Amino acid sequence: MPTEQEMKASLQKYLDGFNEGNSEKVISLFAEDARVEDPVGSEPLKGKASITSFFQQSVPSVKKLELAAPIRGSHSNAAAMAFNIYVEVEGKEAVIRCIDVMTFNDEGLIMDMKAYWGPEDIQA
Amino acid sequence: MPTEQEMKASLQKYLDGFNEGNSEKVISLFAEDARVEDPVGSEPLKGKASITSFFQQSVPSVKKLELAAPIRGSHSNAAAMAFNIYVEVEGKEAVIRCIDVMTFNDEGLIMDMKAYWGPEDIQA
Repeated sequence: MPTEQEMKASLQKYLDGFNEGNSEKVISLFAEDARVEDPVGSEPLKGKASITSFFQQSVPSVKKLELAAPIRGSHSNAAAMAFNIYVEVEGKEAVIRCIDVMTFNDEGLIMDMKAYWGPEDIQA
Repeated sequence: MPTEQEMKASLQKYLDGFNEGNSEKVISLFAEDARVEDPVGSEPLKGKASITSFFQQSVPSVKKLELAAPIRGSHSNAAAMAFNIYVEVEGKEAVIRCIDVMTFNDEGLIMDMKAYWGPEDIQA
């Protein structure tokens, strides 16, 4: 099981990958059989191929990810973070307020990601 | 399924109950068969009786809960929040940085709560 520090470093790398426009950096954090539900309530993506195309599309479409509070660990194989997603919609900046929960496998790769944000968490 | 607003109101009531020292207010938010894992990685509490004694003990032991960022909803029956827990340990104030994820049943009661915080999220 990864340490708290390792899991928090992975979440920070997720933010960095987005902010550097480096989708490969983001994709490399996920296990081959990972599951991504973003937002929670949508059909989950399963497996590295779907996840790769998801981040290849989403990373360039995001202007900035910014932590809203320090990343949290757990007493288990999970970590979580509250952050803001800055995007541009029809030439105007919008912010999505999000909380991601990541669960890790023994190799320290993300095997499950859940992104909690709803229609009311988008601020135009 | 509860609306985003109803779920966010429930999470706010959870904070208020703690801040008013009103454990009954907190307990009333949970379903009879609810499951509470606080912190994630510990043995989950199952059912209203265990949850009642947990909050009867924890509410008076907490000085203050404070949101670190606005509460998040989802496109489903879940909501999440990043907050700080102010406690007193041996006469000294300590802060636990936490993210709670609550999942709701059709009656709008919490059926699952997961509290993400690890040993490194306690700041003395």
